[in-house]
Amino acid sequence: MSVPDYSSVWEQLAQPGGKIVLLVLDGAGGLPFPGVNKSALEAARTPNLDALAASASCGMLEMVGPGITPGSGPGHLALFGYEPLSHQLGRGVLSALGVGFGLQEGDVAARINFATRDRAGRITDRRAGRIPNEVNERLCRSIREQVKLEFEGEYFLFTESQHRAVLILRGPGLGGNIGDTDPQKTGVPPLQAQPTAPDSEKSAAVVRQFVEKAHGALAGETPANTLLLRGFERYKAFPTLAQRFKLNGLCIAQYPMYRGVSRLLGMDVAEPPPLKVQGTMECLVDRIDDGHDFFFVHIKGTDSAGEDGDFDAKVATIEEVDKYLPLVSNLNAEVFAVAADHSTPAVMQGHSWHPVPALIRSRFARVDEVRRFSEDACVHGSLGLRPATHLMGLLLAHAGRLKKFGA
Amino acid sequence: MSVPDYSSVWEQLAQPGGKIVLLVLDGAGGLPFPGVNKSALEAARTPNLDALAASASCGMLEMVGPGITPGSGPGHLALFGYEPLSHQLGRGVLSALGVGFGLQEGDVAARINFATRDRAGRITDRRAGRIPNEVNERLCRSIREQVKLEFEGEYFLFTESQHRAVLILRGPGLGGNIGDTDPQKTGVPPLQAQPTAPDSEKSAAVVRQFVEKAHGALAGETPANTLLLRGFERYKAFPTLAQRFKLNGLCIAQYPMYRGVSRLLGMDVAEPPPLKVQGTMECLVDRIDDGHDFFFVHIKGTDSAGEDGDFDAKVATIEEVDKYLPLVSNLNAEVFAVAADHSTPAVMQGHSWHPVPALIRSRFARVDEVRRFSEDACVHGSLGLRPATHLMGLLLAHAGRLKKFGA
Repeated sequence: MSVPDYSSVWEQLAQPGGKIVLLVLDGAGGLPFPGVNKSALEAARTPNLDALAASASCGMLEMVGPGITPGSGPGHLALFGYEPLSHQLGRGVLSALGVGFGLQEGDVAARINFATRDRAGRITDRRAGRIPNEVNERLCRSIREQVKLEFEGEYFLFTESQHRAVLILRGPGLGGNIGDTDPQKTGVPPLQAQPTAPDSEKSAAVVRQFVEKAHGALAGETPANTLLLRGFERYKAFPTLAQRFKLNGLCIAQYPMYRGVSRLLGMDVAEPPPLKVQGTMECLVDRIDDGHDFFFVHIKGTDSAGEDGDFDAKVATIEEVDKYLPLVSNLNAEVFAVAADHSTPAVMQGHSWHPVPALIRSRFARVDEVRRFSEDACVHGSLGLRPATHLMGLLLAHAGRLKKFGA
Repeated sequence: MSVPDYSSVWEQLAQPGGKIVLLVLDGAGGLPFPGVNKSALEAARTPNLDALAASASCGMLEMVGPGITPGSGPGHLALFGYEPLSHQLGRGVLSALGVGFGLQEGDVAARINFATRDRAGRITDRRAGRIPNEVNERLCRSIREQVKLEFEGEYFLFTESQHRAVLILRGPGLGGNIGDTDPQKTGVPPLQAQPTAPDSEKSAAVVRQFVEKAHGALAGETPANTLLLRGFERYKAFPTLAQRFKLNGLCIAQYPMYRGVSRLLGMDVAEPPPLKVQGTMECLVDRIDDGHDFFFVHIKGTDSAGEDGDFDAKVATIEEVDKYLPLVSNLNAEVFAVAADHSTPAVMQGHSWHPVPALIRSRFARVDEVRRFSEDACVHGSLGLRPATHLMGLLLAHAGRLKKFGA
């Protein structure tokens, strides 16, 4: 049984209109913290966010589906109106986006672990002792210099962090159906790259060539003397925000991952990456009249603090956002919205499935009784509890960017 | 474009985790009763349920869809995460499950009415004066003894109650596409069993043979001297809870119907059937550490009272559940949830489409302001109003049994 996808209707109805600012507090949703008995949003002193909520429509967003904990990609895709269950990003593509690489249609990306093997060729450490970033960067540089592949195309290799790197193959006729070479255990040699479908025989051969030559470049290295590949994926471009919703987007985000996802959807990305909350807000002030009409403003600290289990740091980040909010909350935009891409309760030290609060301020918002941007308050808001993919339609409508449906 | 079924995502993400107890108060939802102006849940004094609600996430479940009144099967299938619109149980299969028969893939089941016909062969009473169960049992025994069918297989015949029985054919190559022999009116003879598709010619012939020989066994009986068959269905096994969600389920239910549905989903079924509310709760206490990780605990009295239009009995059953709740509410389980499979308002003396309250208590539940397990209270809960099929995903998530989606 199928439910109609509203976003295809928005595509048909999209028209030019007012500017939209979407402020995303990454992982801002949470759970009551032991001893405090409030979530970070509930505990934080946020007079400016409160005033915004009091002048807005509020509600709760369920990001991917009931009980489903989103990774970093799916939560944002949902906020941008891309159903995350039908727009899936593999690990390889996410890694490439995460290092800010400009993927092109048909590129094949995979994750790399630098690893350690013994003289018999058996893996002894799948993470090479979690080598420092600097070592990883030196190794990648060394491989890039020494390894020349014989195929009609080129390869790209970038450090992610510690033992992790990303490989991208670009060239005609490359498939992404290649099995992992990471056997997921020690005491055995790495696997040979093998195609899992006929379209990928050529690319599997290129990968085997790469691994063999990389071993040469890593000869004598300790502990990172081999590499394991996984998550091969052929990149297929998504339709852009401009194509779908007639939005000319600008991403204002410090971290590569979010900048990468934004590029994937055809947004421009503010350079240089803004620093911290203040820099992010100031960047929005600088750019608000630069011709874009959709501004995705991303704050990472809320999620990082949640992942670290640091409730106080999460509260502090929210209060820092509140402090700088007046810089941006009355800029020249038709719609100012605040949401999160998922919950990251400090008590869970990780992402969770719990719905997140959201608010939409606009001349045309039906202002409700909610006076706080928090889980316990927004559950009573006029937007109700709804799938996060609904947000984009509401943003477009409040900005006057959706025509009437039917006559 | 269609939105994927969330339950298929839960299947992909399912992993081992904590134990889940799901207490189902059958038909507990209701409407205000005249003179009382409260529903049974609203009127009952339930200090223990209230305390549970106060420590839980609460909300409302719509069982099958807006305005759709569930039968006994669909309401439970929805609670177990089986979309009831795409997992339909025919009457024949439900009857077989209801008498506790262990259906096997490929069995063909049908409902039987004992009926009365006159000397010309015309039906005069489609229910044979609603004969007592004891008569029905004697007739079934007599048929089983006298009727030997000539086909590569066997048949089973069981009393349901009054004039109703159930026939199961088991053997190779039997189809379930057979028209009813019940003409749904009196003054005409029973219809001949006819195939409605070529795959069922053989089984239709077996049915005709059965009816002819059964007439012999019923010769001289008054008033039950013929039988009418309807709801033929070939049983196709559903994927089990273990296959879908890695749940090793135990059903603790007194009534055959619910035990049958549980078997259908691969759950073990507690023997002997527990008696009444106290026995049901005590059975859970006995079994909680027996290696199962999903406990379906079923209370029938709420529904029976509603069907009888006996508001006071419904209130009394709810208060009885509340009395015994402390036996089980703090057992060794990660998740303790309470819900209903549908509403059975006493004022309607039957099932209804109205959403039912639900609560989820767990370390990871976002506790809301709801302080009562009732329709008027739970409508304000943090789970919102949502399809009942969402419940299973939420139970799995709260028990730590779903991995993260995407990276």
